[in-house]
Amino acid sequence: MYNCEIICVGTELLLGDILNTDAQFLSKELASMGIAVLHQSVVGDNKKRLKKELETALSRSDIVITSGGLGPTPDDITREVCCDVMGFETELNKPILNNIKSYFEGKNKKMPESNKKQAYVPIGGVVFENTNGTAPGAAMERDGKCMIILPGPPNELKPMFINQVKPLLQKYSSGAIVSHTVRTMGIGESAMAELVGDLLDNENPTVAPYAKNGEALLRITAKSDSEENANSLCVPMLSLIRQRLGNYVYGIDVDSIEQRVVELLIEKEQTIALAESCTAGYISKRITDVPGSSKVFECGIVSYSDKVKIKLLGISPETFMHHGVVSEQTAKEMAKNVRIVGNSNIGIGITGVAGPGSDENSNPAGIIYIALAGEDSVYVEKLETNKPHNREYNRFVASSVALNIVRLYLEGCLL
Amino acid sequence: MYNCEIICVGTELLLGDILNTDAQFLSKELASMGIAVLHQSVVGDNKKRLKKELETALSRSDIVITSGGLGPTPDDITREVCCDVMGFETELNKPILNNIKSYFEGKNKKMPESNKKQAYVPIGGVVFENTNGTAPGAAMERDGKCMIILPGPPNELKPMFINQVKPLLQKYSSGAIVSHTVRTMGIGESAMAELVGDLLDNENPTVAPYAKNGEALLRITAKSDSEENANSLCVPMLSLIRQRLGNYVYGIDVDSIEQRVVELLIEKEQTIALAESCTAGYISKRITDVPGSSKVFECGIVSYSDKVKIKLLGISPETFMHHGVVSEQTAKEMAKNVRIVGNSNIGIGITGVAGPGSDENSNPAGIIYIALAGEDSVYVEKLETNKPHNREYNRFVASSVALNIVRLYLEGCLL
Repeated sequence: MYNCEIICVGTELLLGDILNTDAQFLSKELASMGIAVLHQSVVGDNKKRLKKELETALSRSDIVITSGGLGPTPDDITREVCCDVMGFETELNKPILNNIKSYFEGKNKKMPESNKKQAYVPIGGVVFENTNGTAPGAAMERDGKCMIILPGPPNELKPMFINQVKPLLQKYSSGAIVSHTVRTMGIGESAMAELVGDLLDNENPTVAPYAKNGEALLRITAKSDSEENANSLCVPMLSLIRQRLGNYVYGIDVDSIEQRVVELLIEKEQTIALAESCTAGYISKRITDVPGSSKVFECGIVSYSDKVKIKLLGISPETFMHHGVVSEQTAKEMAKNVRIVGNSNIGIGITGVAGPGSDENSNPAGIIYIALAGEDSVYVEKLETNKPHNREYNRFVASSVALNIVRLYLEGCLL
Repeated sequence: MYNCEIICVGTELLLGDILNTDAQFLSKELASMGIAVLHQSVVGDNKKRLKKELETALSRSDIVITSGGLGPTPDDITREVCCDVMGFETELNKPILNNIKSYFEGKNKKMPESNKKQAYVPIGGVVFENTNGTAPGAAMERDGKCMIILPGPPNELKPMFINQVKPLLQKYSSGAIVSHTVRTMGIGESAMAELVGDLLDNENPTVAPYAKNGEALLRITAKSDSEENANSLCVPMLSLIRQRLGNYVYGIDVDSIEQRVVELLIEKEQTIALAESCTAGYISKRITDVPGSSKVFECGIVSYSDKVKIKLLGISPETFMHHGVVSEQTAKEMAKNVRIVGNSNIGIGITGVAGPGSDENSNPAGIIYIALAGEDSVYVEKLETNKPHNREYNRFVASSVALNIVRLYLEGCLL
């Protein structure tokens, strides 16, 4: 299997001004081709350090891919240093120069003289045209090593990689790596490790646990000579994991719990209405992030104030008086009433304290009641996040738990 | 000036499964302290490669910071390898073990045996408590080199760095770099460059433009011997930029347009109610992301279906018939009616097509009408994002534009 290393060039990355999305994109693409990325690194616009980094990379990897530093300004040094390290001379490429000129003409501008520099390409290398910008990319191969230089802006790098670099890298693609992600809700990372701990030592496929946004995930990764064979290695492992984790699993290779919920609602021909207090539109936003959700999502009421809870949702003031706004009873009434108001099969009611502080009735932050009303049943759950100061976390997790309750209800697993 | 190097550990990063936000966060924080980050790198959960990377880093940098690989599973190897490279033995730390146990007790769970591993800390090192998770961080200093190990999840790493690591790193901080961010709405990056283009050549402070989430930002960065002096260098530049960009500027060093809107609503003692169709809770979610928003946010109605628009918002079916659901008139009526229903000073109505496809009436995706109703005026704006396929972008930008309209209204700048 060939090894690849990604080097992103740019002081703006080292200053933390931008997120390194190029490294993620390239890594994902390479993994899917069965090329192993063993190192990513970032260096600034500094010739000496970039040269050192490139030399180290070439000494341990078959393929080195750089992103960034191909611009027209003097601190854009990647092309020059890469050609130097690979021992390639450069020459002015007329068609590329004309491309750059047309790019500016398309914007009714004259090409600045400094952009001419971008039309120099390695003699004997492969040139990649830039359809979204001015800097071309290039590939140089020598002594069994391959260096590929790409522009930094993601909207230039991505199409160039997909359309021009991938075909060239096919010959390095050794078999394939296939990954599947088992997504769970309602179980922590360590509890999950106890149920599937023995599988974590498996070699092919490997099984690795991750925690992400309050969810515990398992990634199953297999290597083989073809995508099909790699996938076949995953199948029995996936069903074993499903068996062990049961209802905790909400999906395999789905993007999110909201995606699964919208799928289920469509499949079961059910509609949903939401009455959100502390999550205040978060569940509504997440459900409607999924294209096609308009088929199943009727209405959301964000009842942030008590007045609105009474006026729009018809919650009885007695409920507030006897049980408090943040209570099981209020959540239940919200769910039942929004189901009616929103003319839906399922109603969800959420009331709680998002934080960072307690509410005026000294309910601590992170206490949230979530209710689901169906045609003839009401279910309610109390959530304690134990993160009083983390408003975003509390809101996100509460909305995830609510979505998971809908999922369990639709799968027939709720009491 | 001291040099620092950031090493993020995790095969999930090399597979491109997650974005490396830790590297960005740490780089930004270190830059603000006047500590130079010259390299970032990523290695997988592999002892040999991590060890090599750490040794290289220690040979060229004064400070090495790792993130990730401190979990309870066997593939979490960072603590062990870092202690090995720095020559530190580890011991079980009772208070940390108790913290981990309480963390699980808080969730009504028993600590899995595997988490005990996380309570081993370097003898003679500094231990950082983890207030949002189980893995503590640590610092080890030897022979003028400092190694800091931090947990990978951003919600654990960030508070640990801010509250515990920064004070420890103060002694390495040479002089200071101060950055301010001018945030604008309603002006593109190139239009902004025309208004402030000459300032981009300034040396201290530097002025750099960025585009982020559909906004154009300017970052002003000054270096000096102290934070105070660096800040003084920024002040005249900031007021010059404010002068040039006028109303486009919605804030300096504010987190977001929603933060500014909530501040203004509180200051002007105004309340707001929202009727959202295509944004479907996104504005509501963003406003209530801001702590204290309950003072000014009354109610949100997500009227995804036409039935709900008629039933809850009282939109007249004639309006739909004559002008369409996606129209200026519907947006205006939504704004006016939700203002009454929600008993608020300001009403916002949004109707449009989020995409990826057109709606059933062939309105193209990315066409969105946004209306604001005040006591005796109604304002409406048509937004065309020109990104038919990007649902998330269309929804985000529409909610940003709506928030900016509220901001301009409250600042008295709306017609």
